[in-house]
Amino acid sequence: MEVKVAISARHIHLTREDVDILFGKGYELHKRNDLSQIGQYASEELVTIKTDKSELKLRVLGPLRNYTQAEISKTDAFKMGLNPPVRDSGDVKNSEKVTIIGPNGTIENKECCILAIRHIHMSIEDSIKYCLKNGDKVSVKVDTIKGGIMENVHIKVDKDFTLEMHIDTDDGNAFLLKDGDILEVIK
Amino acid sequence: MEVKVAISARHIHLTREDVDILFGKGYELHKRNDLSQIGQYASEELVTIKTDKSELKLRVLGPLRNYTQAEISKTDAFKMGLNPPVRDSGDVKNSEKVTIIGPNGTIENKECCILAIRHIHMSIEDSIKYCLKNGDKVSVKVDTIKGGIMENVHIKVDKDFTLEMHIDTDDGNAFLLKDGDILEVIK
Repeated sequence: MEVKVAISARHIHLTREDVDILFGKGYELHKRNDLSQIGQYASEELVTIKTDKSELKLRVLGPLRNYTQAEISKTDAFKMGLNPPVRDSGDVKNSEKVTIIGPNGTIENKECCILAIRHIHMSIEDSIKYCLKNGDKVSVKVDTIKGGIMENVHIKVDKDFTLEMHIDTDDGNAFLLKDGDILEVIK
Repeated sequence: MEVKVAISARHIHLTREDVDILFGKGYELHKRNDLSQIGQYASEELVTIKTDKSELKLRVLGPLRNYTQAEISKTDAFKMGLNPPVRDSGDVKNSEKVTIIGPNGTIENKECCILAIRHIHMSIEDSIKYCLKNGDKVSVKVDTIKGGIMENVHIKVDKDFTLEMHIDTDDGNAFLLKDGDILEVIK
């Protein structure tokens, strides 16, 4: 089984409530470009996340979600003085706290900052085809000069998902991968 | 077989000739601290490497060598607009060119910038003990939540070497490793 890789730069997902604070009541995000997962998009909007040590600009991804979640790399985390847990999307309880600054307002010490676990999105059809179910863990082989095997890659199944592996920029840079590279999944 | 890991931050090795240009004729480096490999040390001295796109400060490691070599990460390389080859130490032919700036002078477009290949230093005694020779390639297993296997790890044998695996900050951050972690070598 093969999968196309997409490298996720640092970004943030926001709730309606937090957009209201950061950008103003009822504010609507402006789509900059579609992402490969159906309905997901990068917006024109940026926010700043801040700690005592440093700050980073993060692009807001749409649409809005029912949780606010900042996804950064371990490289970013060192710069920020943070130690975020490695998590599946949406699992932000006891994650790192950062202050989020938007053009209209600030949210202090928001528990929202994680390192996203390596994962593969797939449709229900692909799930059946490849005999994998939501929550399964697989390994993925990389054949670059700094190659190897990425373990503990989580399978995420949804009717709207497109087959694609998401890794952070640290994995992308360590393994010398670029968007669109094709990798082999080892069950 | 187990090996202790050391994460190499970006740094530079310099020749006598290049120290003369950058710091002044006959200038001697000032040792800040010893490194784990016998005789190697981090100096007090820093230089700047510069491209059209950006610049980075690099610590000078001593003692002097018969080649000048800047070792950065792929993360650094993106920031700098460079695409350095992955190389063993000393193999700088056709590597990326950067301008090196010191307090006394500048070296323009020096062909010296690489990504260091993952490698394991070992003594002749360890080489015999583990049935590995200089130039062999092994794989190394990592058991973190973002673990896996690093392949194409080069074995470097010398009478003065101490058993230790050297990786760059991208590998360290991607695999969530820290200095001193113990990893399993798979031949």
